Amino acid sequence: MKEFKVKDTALASKGFLQIEWASKHMPVLNQIKERFAREKPLKGLTLGACLHVTKETAVLVETFLAGGAQVALCGSNPLSTQDDVAAALAEKGVHVFAWRGQTTEEYYWCVERVIDYAPTITLDDGADLVSTLHSKRTETLPSIKGGTEETTTGVMRLRAMEKSGTLKYAIIAVNDAYTKYLFDNRYGTGQSTIDGILRATNILLAGKNFVVCGYGWCGRGLAMRAQGMGANVIVTEVNPLRALEAAMNGYRVMPISQAAA
Amino acid sequence: MKEFKVKDTALASKGFLQIEWASKHMPVLNQIKERFAREKPLKGLTLGACLHVTKETAVLVETFLAGGAQVALCGSNPLSTQDDVAAALAEKGVHVFAWRGQTTEEYYWCVERVIDYAPTITLDDGADLVSTLHSKRTETLPSIKGGTEETTTGVMRLRAMEKSGTLKYAIIAVNDAYTKYLFDNRYGTGQSTIDGILRATNILLAGKNFVVCGYGWCGRGLAMRAQGMGANVIVTEVNPLRALEAAMNGYRVMPISQAAA
Amino acid sequence: MKEFKVKDTALASKGFLQIEWASKHMPVLNQIKERFAREKPLKGLTLGACLHVTKETAVLVETFLAGGAQVALCGSNPLSTQDDVAAALAEKGVHVFAWRGQTTEEYYWCVERVIDYAPTITLDDGADLVSTLHSKRTETLPSIKGGTEETTTGVMRLRAMEKSGTLKYAIIAVNDAYTKYLFDNRYGTGQSTIDGILRATNILLAGKNFVVCGYGWCGRGLAMRAQGMGANVIVTEVNPLRALEAAMNGYRVMPISQAAA
Amino acid sequence: MKEFKVKDTALASKGFLQIEWASKHMPVLNQIKERFAREKPLKGLTLGACLHVTKETAVLVETFLAGGAQVALCGSNPLSTQDDVAAALAEKGVHVFAWRGQTTEEYYWCVERVIDYAPTITLDDGADLVSTLHSKRTETLPSIKGGTEETTTGVMRLRAMEKSGTLKYAIIAVNDAYTKYLFDNRYGTGQSTIDGILRATNILLAGKNFVVCGYGWCGRGLAMRAQGMGANVIVTEVNPLRALEAAMNGYRVMPISQAAA
Repeated sequence: MKEFKVKDTALASKGFLQIEWASKHMPVLNQIKERFAREKPLKGLTLGACLHVTKETAVLVETFLAGGAQVALCGSNPLSTQDDVAAALAEKGVHVFAWRGQTTEEYYWCVERVIDYAPTITLDDGADLVSTLHSKRTETLPSIKGGTEETTTGVMRLRAMEKSGTLKYAIIAVNDAYTKYLFDNRYGTGQSTIDGILRATNILLAGKNFVVCGYGWCGRGLAMRAQGMGANVIVTEVNPLRALEAAMNGYRVMPISQAAA
Repeated sequence: MKEFKVKDTALASKGFLQIEWASKHMPVLNQIKERFAREKPLKGLTLGACLHVTKETAVLVETFLAGGAQVALCGSNPLSTQDDVAAALAEKGVHVFAWRGQTTEEYYWCVERVIDYAPTITLDDGADLVSTLHSKRTETLPSIKGGTEETTTGVMRLRAMEKSGTLKYAIIAVNDAYTKYLFDNRYGTGQSTIDGILRATNILLAGKNFVVCGYGWCGRGLAMRAQGMGANVIVTEVNPLRALEAAMNGYRVMPISQAAA
Repeated sequence: MKEFKVKDTALASKGFLQIEWASKHMPVLNQIKERFAREKPLKGLTLGACLHVTKETAVLVETFLAGGAQVALCGSNPLSTQDDVAAALAEKGVHVFAWRGQTTEEYYWCVERVIDYAPTITLDDGADLVSTLHSKRTETLPSIKGGTEETTTGVMRLRAMEKSGTLKYAIIAVNDAYTKYLFDNRYGTGQSTIDGILRATNILLAGKNFVVCGYGWCGRGLAMRAQGMGANVIVTEVNPLRALEAAMNGYRVMPISQAAA
Repeated sequence: MKEFKVKDTALASKGFLQIEWASKHMPVLNQIKERFAREKPLKGLTLGACLHVTKETAVLVETFLAGGAQVALCGSNPLSTQDDVAAALAEKGVHVFAWRGQTTEEYYWCVERVIDYAPTITLDDGADLVSTLHSKRTETLPSIKGGTEETTTGVMRLRAMEKSGTLKYAIIAVNDAYTKYLFDNRYGTGQSTIDGILRATNILLAGKNFVVCGYGWCGRGLAMRAQGMGANVIVTEVNPLRALEAAMNGYRVMPISQAAA
C-alpha cells in the first residue's frame, strides 16, 4: 500500500508553522489531546477521514494520533487542500492523499486509497467516503463500526440511504449539533462572508444597502455582522416565521425582486 | 424677607429619600462635596439659582451648602418642580421658591424672591433669572460676580445680549462643554426619549419604523438607542454633512415628507 | 347566572379608548376579526377564558365575539386586571368577572363563574381554570372539546397531569410556539424589563455594568436590549452551551458570585 | 523632459479595469467629472500631485484631466503604488513617476520630476512635495498659486513652517474636514483595520477580547466595528474625556498594562 501522496514534502516545515498557529486558537481540542495522550482511547483503531485538509483539520488529526489511532486522510474538496499542511501531516506518519487542484478522477482515487486502510471509523464531510464505501468498496463495510458526517448535504444523503435501508452502519450527524449552528453557521459563516466580500471587492460596507438572501443560521449571522460593519441590511426570506424574525430584529424585509431593483 | 415658599413642608421626608437615591448615582459630585466640606471655598457667597427643582439639582445644592454658600433657588420651569424635593431643601435651610404647576405670574414672583437675596453668582437654565436681573432688578447687578447658563436657548439669548452690549457680567456657557453634549444630549436625551415613548405608548419598538428628525447630538443619541431597541431607524436631516453621517451609520435617510408617507 | 362582575361600569368609555389604541397595533388579529365577522366560525361555541384582563386581551375577545362566540372571562392574576377594560367588555356583553386587587378567594370565585357558562373551549394562562375544572367542577368536563395554555408554568402542570393520566381533554401548548419565544420572551420581556428598570430607578444605563442571570430566550432578549442602551453586559449562566453562546455574542460571562462582587 | 516612468506599460489594460471598478463606487466624483468635462475649469493649469498611486487616486486624476488640467504625479509612499494603475495613467497622458518598491533615492527623484512640470497647484499627502519645493527647488515657488495637504502629519509639518514664516504659499488642510474624520478615520480605518487583522490572523473575532489603544476618531471607528464583529471591546485611553466617552459607549476602559495582562 502507498504510504501517502502529497504535492511536495519539502513544504512540511511551513505546514508545521501553520498547524502550530491553528493549535494556539483551539484550546478545547488541546485539552482533549492531552487526555488522549495519557489514556490512548483510540489505540488499535484506524480512522478513515475525508475532510478539508487544512491547518485546523491537522490539529484534529494530531489529536487522533495522540489517542493512539492510525489515520488515513483524503481531502473532501479538490480545491481546499493546503499543500504545506498535507506535507506536514505526511511527515507525521499520516496516510494523507491530497493536493490542491486535483481532478475529479484524482479526487476519487484518493478516497479509495483511504479505504485501502480498512478504517474502523469514518469521518466524512459531504458523504463521498461513505457512498464510495457503499458502492464500489463494499468488501470493507463489515469492519466499520461507525462514522460521523459534518454537513447538511451529507446528512441529507445519509438520511435518504437510511430511509431506503441501504445504509450499513450508524453515523453521527455532527451537523445537527447546536454548537455546529452557532460556530460554523452563525459566527463562522457570518464573519468569513464579510471577509470574502472585503477581499473580493475592497469596498466600504458602511452606508451600503446589504441584501441577505435567506434568514437561516448563516443568514442571521451574516445580517448581524453586516449591520455591525455599518451596512443597512435588507433580508429576503420565503419562510414567514423567519421573515417575521428578521423584521423584529430591525431589518427591512422584502421580496428578492424588490431588493434587487 | 420671606425664607421660602413650597407646596407642603410635610413632604420633606419623602424628598430626603429621593435626594439620597439621586446622590448614590452621582459619585463625582459627592467627591466634590467632601472636598468642599473641608475647604469651604464658597464661604460668604450667595448663589442665586433658577434650575429644575429635582432630586439631582438638590444634590448639587447640597454640595454648595457643604462649600459654605447660602443658596436661593427657584424653578426654571413651572412644571418640573418635585414638591417633595423642594420641601426637603427648605428644611435644609435653602431659600427655595418653587412648586409644581405654578402660573407664569407666580413663576416670575419666585424669580424675584431669589434676586431679593442679592446673589454673588447666578446659575441659570434658560436665562430667565439673568434677563429679570437686567430688566426689572438692575439695582442688584453691581454685586454679581458672574454666572452660568445651562441650555442652548439661554446661551443664544445671552450671546444676543453680549452682542448688543447689554450683558453686564460674565457667564460661563455650560451648554458648550463636550460632556454636556455627551451626557445630556447623546446619552441622556437618547435614553429618556425612549423612556418617554414607552411610558406614553406602551408599544413594542422591535421591528417598528422609527423616524428621527434631525441628526444633531440628541438625534444621534436617539437613533442609536432606537436601533438598540430593535427598531428600523430612518433619519431626516437638512444639513447634508449630518445626513451623510447618518447614512454612513447604516440608517435610511430621506426627506421628512417621504418618511411620514 | 350572574351576567358579569367588575369594579365600576362607569369606567367603560375609558376602557373603549384603551382597547381602540391596542387594536391599532394588532393588525394580524384585526384581519382575523374581519374574516371571523364574515364566516362566523365560532357560532354556537362558548369560550371560557382565564387571561390577563388587559386591553390586548380585549382585542382578542372582540375577535371571538366577531366570530360568533359567547365569551366568559376571568383574570389570570389578581393584580393585572385593567378595570376600565373589564367595564368596557361587560358593556359589550362579555361575561367578565374580574377586578384589580381581588383576594385569592375572590379570584377563585371568578374562575368558577366562568365555569358556570359551561365552556366548549378553555383558554388558560397558568392552568388555574383547567385545574379547577378537574378538581371541583368535573361535571362540566364532558362538554369541553379542547383548550389552550399560554405559559411555561401552566404547560408544566398540564404535562404532569397528562403523565399521571388525569388530564381529561386535549390542550394546545401555546407556550411552545416559536413566535411565543420570539415575541413574548425575546422581544417582549427584553423591552419590558428595560422599561421596568427605567421606571423603578430612573438611572442612565449607558456605561453601567448590567448583569443578566440566565441566558435563555428572556435573558438573550434582555442582554441584547441592555447592550443596545449602552450598558456593559455580563451574563451568568450554568448551562455551558448557553454560556458559550453568550461569550460568542461578545458579553462577559462569569459566575454570579463574581458578577455580584 | 521625461514624459513618465512606470514599471511596465503592458500592465495598462489591467489598470484600466481597476480604475473602472473604483469609479463605479465614487458617484460624487463622477458627477464633478461630468461638470468639469463641460466647464473645463482647470484649463491651462498644471497640477503637481504626490499621492498614493492607487485606482481611487486615478479616478481623481481623470477628473482633473476632464477639467482641462495637465497632471504630473508621483507616489507618496514607496510601497503603495499599484503598477497597473500607474501604467494606465501613463497611457492616458499623465506624467506619472511611480513604481512599487522604489528606494528612497528613487522616491525623491520622482518628486523632482513632478516639480519639473512647474505646477500651478500642488496636492500633497505627507508634505514631501511641498518641503522639496521649499528646500531644493525654490525657483519653482513663484508660479505656485496654492495647494492641498491630506494627512495629520503633513498638516503638522506645514503648521510648523507657517509659524516660522517659511511657508511660501497657502495650503488647504484637507485633513481638518469633518468628512475626512468620518470617512477616512472612523469608517475607513475602522473597517480596514478589521480587514487587515482578518487577513493576517484568520481568527474568529466573536467572543475575543479586543483591545483598542486610544479613542480618537480611528479608535472609535475600530471599537464600533470590533463590537459589530462580536468581540468584547476594551479601550485604553489617557485623555479622561475620551475615556469617559468610551465607558459611556459600553466598553470596558482600563490602563494598557491591565488590558495586556
